[in-house]
This record gives sequence, C-alpha cells and structure tokens, in this order.
Amino acid sequence: MEMESIITEMAKKARIASREAASAGSAVKNRVLTDLADILLAERKALFVENARDVEAAREKGLSAAMVDRLTLTDKTVESMAKGLREVAAQEDPVGGISHMRVRPNGLMVGKMTIPLGVVCMIYESRPNVTVDAAGLCLKAGNAVILRGGSEAIHSNTALGGLIARALAENGLPPETVSLVPITDRAAVNVLLAQEEYIDLVIPRGGEGLIRFVVEHSRIPVLKHYKGVCHMFVDRGADHGMAEGICMNAKVQRPGVCNALETLLVHKDEARTFLPRVEGSLKAAGVEIRGCERTVEIVAEAVPATEDDWGREFLDLILAVKVVDSLEAALAHIAAYGSQHTEAIVTPHYDRALTFMRRVDASAVMVNASTRFNDGGELGLGAEIGISTSKLHAFGPMGVKELTSEKFVVLGEGQIRS
Amino acid sequence: MEMESIITEMAKKARIASREAASAGSAVKNRVLTDLADILLAERKALFVENARDVEAAREKGLSAAMVDRLTLTDKTVESMAKGLREVAAQEDPVGGISHMRVRPNGLMVGKMTIPLGVVCMIYESRPNVTVDAAGLCLKAGNAVILRGGSEAIHSNTALGGLIARALAENGLPPETVSLVPITDRAAVNVLLAQEEYIDLVIPRGGEGLIRFVVEHSRIPVLKHYKGVCHMFVDRGADHGMAEGICMNAKVQRPGVCNALETLLVHKDEARTFLPRVEGSLKAAGVEIRGCERTVEIVAEAVPATEDDWGREFLDLILAVKVVDSLEAALAHIAAYGSQHTEAIVTPHYDRALTFMRRVDASAVMVNASTRFNDGGELGLGAEIGISTSKLHAFGPMGVKELTSEKFVVLGEGQIRS
Repeated sequence: MEMESIITEMAKKARIASREAASAGSAVKNRVLTDLADILLAERKALFVENARDVEAAREKGLSAAMVDRLTLTDKTVESMAKGLREVAAQEDPVGGISHMRVRPNGLMVGKMTIPLGVVCMIYESRPNVTVDAAGLCLKAGNAVILRGGSEAIHSNTALGGLIARALAENGLPPETVSLVPITDRAAVNVLLAQEEYIDLVIPRGGEGLIRFVVEHSRIPVLKHYKGVCHMFVDRGADHGMAEGICMNAKVQRPGVCNALETLLVHKDEARTFLPRVEGSLKAAGVEIRGCERTVEIVAEAVPATEDDWGREFLDLILAVKVVDSLEAALAHIAAYGSQHTEAIVTPHYDRALTFMRRVDASAVMVNASTRFNDGGELGLGAEIGISTSKLHAFGPMGVKELTSEKFVVLGEGQIRS
Repeated sequence: MEMESIITEMAKKARIASREAASAGSAVKNRVLTDLADILLAERKALFVENARDVEAAREKGLSAAMVDRLTLTDKTVESMAKGLREVAAQEDPVGGISHMRVRPNGLMVGKMTIPLGVVCMIYESRPNVTVDAAGLCLKAGNAVILRGGSEAIHSNTALGGLIARALAENGLPPETVSLVPITDRAAVNVLLAQEEYIDLVIPRGGEGLIRFVVEHSRIPVLKHYKGVCHMFVDRGADHGMAEGICMNAKVQRPGVCNALETLLVHKDEARTFLPRVEGSLKAAGVEIRGCERTVEIVAEAVPATEDDWGREFLDLILAVKVVDSLEAALAHIAAYGSQHTEAIVTPHYDRALTFMRRVDASAVMVNASTRFNDGGELGLGAEIGISTSKLHAFGPMGVKELTSEKFVVLGEGQIRS
C-alpha cells in the first residue's frame, strides 16, 4: 500500500513537472544537458565508488561476465555518456515547430505543431548508462521521465539520479522532471503500468521476458521491440563480392545485436558459386552454418538445419542458410519467419529491388546494404531511445522526434462552422 | 471455446488478407470503394428490410428515440455512405510514397515509405454506417479490418457485410479483407483484444463505458477518445461580436458532439460588457448558464455553478461560465479541467495568441475560430475514422493517413558498417 502511494505520487508529480518541461526554452533544456555532461565528468570518482557496490554485489550473486560488463562504469562509458548528452544538446529542438500549414477554403489556416508526449516511463535492466541517455533524450523532447532501472544497478542509478537532479536544479527545472523509482521490487512495475492518467508512454528495454511482462500488464501505450531476426537475400545475378561483404558485416561485426544477420537466403542460380565462396570467410570467422538440404549438398561442413533454426535469433556466430527458387520464395520465407525488424536484398535488378522494398514488412528494408545500418545514429536520427517493431507511433529506431507528438493549430479571423 | 477459436481463426485470416490488401494497387482499392457505393444504392431496399428488423427489436426493447434514430438507415444515410466512399476513392493513395529521402555521409540513401498498419479492429455501437465508413477508410490505407458492431445493429451490419464482400470479390480481393464478427456477446470482445499477434490496432467508438472496457482489457494498442470538454477564453480586448459569434456557434450549432463548447472563460475586463451581450443570444437559443460567483453577479438568470460543473461534458444546451483574472488563470483552468480535445481563445493580441497556442495541451488549439472546426473534414483530412485524445501515433481527428505507418528504406551500393 505504501509502495503504491509512493509511486502514484511520483507519477502525479511527474505529470505536473512535464508542463514545465514542455514550456522550457531550448536554451534551458540544452544547458541542463551540457551541465550534466560536465557534472558526470567532474564526479566520476564518486560515481565509480557507487558503481563498485553494484559490481561487487553482481559478482557475489554470480551474474555472468557479460552482465557484469554491462553494469560496469569506466572512464570510457562516462565519457561516452557525456559526449552523447552534448550531441543531443546540439540537435535542433524537436518541439514547437509548425508544419503543413495550409489555408482552408474558409480562410482558416490549419497546421500541426510538434509537442512533447508528456510523461515517459522507461523500464530497463542492467546498463546504468540508459539512465543518462534516456533522461537526456526525454528532456530534449520536453518530456518528464520516470526511470525504473534494474535492482542490480540501483546504487549506480541512484548516484546518477542525484547528478541529474543537480543539473536540473542549477537550471531552475523541477527535480520531478526526471525521477528515479527507488523501489526495485517487480510489483512496483505493476503499479507504474497502471498510472495511465499520469504516464503517456512506457518504453521497456531488456530481455524478452521483461518486455512481454510490460505489454501484458500495461494500460499505458508501450513502444517495444521483441527481437530481430534479420534475413538477407542474395538475388539472381547479385554481385558476389558485394553479397559476401554485406553477409560478413551483417553476421560477424557484432553478432549479439538485434540488427545482426540470422538467416541467409540464396537464389538457386547463385548457390553453387556463391555458397562455396562465402563458406571460407564464414569458417575463418568461426561461424557455424546450419543449412537447408540443398545448402548441405553444396557446403560440406554445414550442419543440417532443423525447423527451429528458421526464424531463430541466434545472437551468436551461427547462420541459417537456405537456397530458394525465386524472389517470391524469399519473400514468402521472410513473411513466415521474419520479425519485422530488418531485411536486406542484394540485387542488380531495378524491378526486383522495388518489389522487395515494397513487399517486405520490416521497420527497415535494405537494398545492397548491411542490416547493421538499422540504427538511429546510422540512419541519421541521432541518439536512439529504442527500436520499435510495432507500427503504431514509430516503427524502427526512435530518436528524439519519436518522443514527440503533434497538435493541430488553427488560426482564424472569427470563422464559425456552417 | 468454440467462440474463441472462431475469432482467433478470423483474426489469423485477416492477417493473411492484410498482405494482399497492402500490395493491392490504388486502382483496385478505389474500384472496390466505388463498386460498393453502387451496390449500396442498388440494394438499398434489401438493406432497409434487414435494418427494419433491428429497428423493430430496438423499439421492443424500449431503446431511446436517439438510439433508434442512430440505428435507422434511410435513403439519406445510404446516399451519404455512398458519397463518403466516392470521396475516399478520390483521395490520393496514402500508401507507398517515400519521403525525407536523404543521403548519409557514406552515400546510403535513407527515406521513409508509408505502409499500411496491417489489421485494424473497430469496436463500435449502434450506427450501421460505421461499418461502411470504417471498411472504406481501412481498405484505402491498405489494411484489413475486423468489424465488431453492436448487437442492436446485427441484421443491418450482416447485410452491409454481404455487400462489402461482393465488392471485394468483384475486384479479386479476399473476403477476409473486411470481416464482420458474427458474435455479439461481449466475451467476443475480450477474445479479440487478446489477438495481439494478428491485430495491430483497436479503435473503439461509442460510449465512455465501452472505451474504458477496451482500454482495460486490450493487449493491442488502442486509439481512443474519451470525451471533449472544450473551453473558449474571451481575452482582454477581444472583439465582442467575434467572441459572441464563436461562442454561439460552438455551443448551439450541435450541442451533443464532442467539439461543442462546454465552458466559457471571460477575462475580468470584458465580463461586465460581454456577458450581458451574449446572455441574450444564449437565452434565445435556450441555453442554461451555470456561472461562477462573479458571473452570477452580472448575469441575473445564471444558476450558480457547482464544482462538478467545471470540466463537465454537458452535451446539452448548458454552458458553464467563469470570469478569470488573467490569461494565466484561463490557462490554469484549462490545464485543470480540460480533456485535451479542443480549446479556443478569442484575442486581438499577437503575443497572447502565441502563448495560448503553445501552452494549451489539446489536440486542436483554435485562435479566433470555433471549437466546432476540430473535425477531419473541416481540418482537411477528408473522412475521419475517429478522434484521438491520447498523443501516441495520432492526436486529434484521424483520417486515412493515420491508418498508416512508415518504414525505413535504405538504398545502397554495397555499404557495410564500420
């Protein structure tokens, strides 16, 4: 009961603070961001002390090396947070612009003004840098934000929250503009997800379990991203050098991320020459191939793929490979097994590129480019707060602009409706 | 159990049909719409027979005259449905365009292509014309749609569904592009709201009870509209003739709709001259005034307002009136009692118009114009499928464009990520 009232009160105060954040000028918002960058660099020693408590606890609990790594703050991560904040500060203010102003037959001028969403709630797991990145992006877009990080990062997040509060106070913004939920109990998430009156958007970031939990329990709209099962189709007539370069980049450069390649589809006319070529490079990079029957015939060392391998997010040095009869067959495979994240074609044919681009249902469709480019920075959005694989509001990487909405503004001279 | 599997199967088939709808050309989609318009006009007699069964049942059940009226199909409503379909057909295709194509430093061309949302589910009450309007708008945007009308309109909706299926079949589109839920039990709504795998968006249209039910039970994103509590602020120095014209239009022209005026705020410097002027017109139109203390002093016949009258959606010939000390006081009142729907100011002052426009949190902000203009047709969107009072995806009237999303398209020449 007490926990419930603490969180409800927090959400209510965030709603009130969001009005001040919405009308804060660009200069004030940007100063908070650059001040926070300065404070982070100046206070890094104190930060490391708090972070060490989390890291130690994680080690004692026997968390995996990868998790401890994500949790650990270093000079490099602090510098990167500060740099990110300065970059966001340098971006154009996404709020207050008016576009599409048109004159109606009755003389009314009708346009749309960008406005903040209001209150955003981020629910995330171990990385403490999300605390700073999310606060920066939400504030730039004129939103208040409620941050609910994982229990394993609570000391780091509390310390970061204190520094954020300082940057807000120095610039006259209410501390509730960015609030940190001090309760790490999962029941607190349930209470947050019921605050539809005070919270406008929930963004979960973390494992699929967390995201499904949030979607199932939220009465507030959720922008989510389940997984990335990215395909690449090497079309008839494709340049083998280009296809190999893209395949290797997409699979190997960073196999653990959502825009890495999971399944390679190869047109039957290219399979006998292309697969032996790419096999060597994949092998050299330590990639295991799980192939369809035809692939196994061509690539001696390929493991036969099981049904379970199609549409699977390996997040590892494993690649499913399938030979397909046609562009249609490739499209059908992607429709059946894709995750609406990122899909690529390598083709020299104008008409087939156009067909692929139109028909594939994914947040980003790549023609002759690596799937790894589906990223806010690479696509030119600036820093991203997440990737959406559902189509409402935003589909794909979400930058500062995706943290805004639009209202109609109507300028008249006394018009009434007849 | 059987009901559950019928609805799940229906949703699954709608998802499959949505792929065909998404890749249907503009000509095919428009022909379905104009064919349906022709069929509706040709088959109106058969339609009236089915509609009469619903109307009779409604009368027997003792439904209100207003509800029976909404349920009744006449020559006029059928002609208006047909006209609406032709107008939607005449609109530009909202799908497949690419905008914001930019070149990145590495030469990649990055743009956004408009795409259908996928499968839309409309849950509505008594008006059978929603069946046709929603089918037309969803199809134009390349979506499949699942329609779940009220039990009181089941015979009318079934007949309309048959005509829609004919128009689809004549143009080679699968019948599941537009499907009608044959089960009027409310439990069927619960099953629909759990089909997150197959349905992308739910739009409820009806009373607040229905909408709250949908929001509470849906795992699918919901675009909703609770109510419209519209204010109008007569600023210091406002032209009294203009203010009176707008006030009368906003309150009286159609008091039962969501963009009608509910509360009039008057700057204290204008109250003693403006209120007596508008009082006569309001009285002549049969409007009851519920005033604050200062209003009651000026307007002899005003009833004293209770706290409950502020922020109330009267939907009737009743107007709450409050005298305020300043623009700030008007903004504070609107922030406290508004419904984020439509707010208006009448002012001659450039700076105060700008302040009002920026600070008011509503889907449409009107300067010197009637609140009644917050409507898809009036704002230039064409036909509307609903009005959203939440900020995710769409805020305000939603036309065909709001039934689409965007994906990134990336055109490369072999680029890989470094």
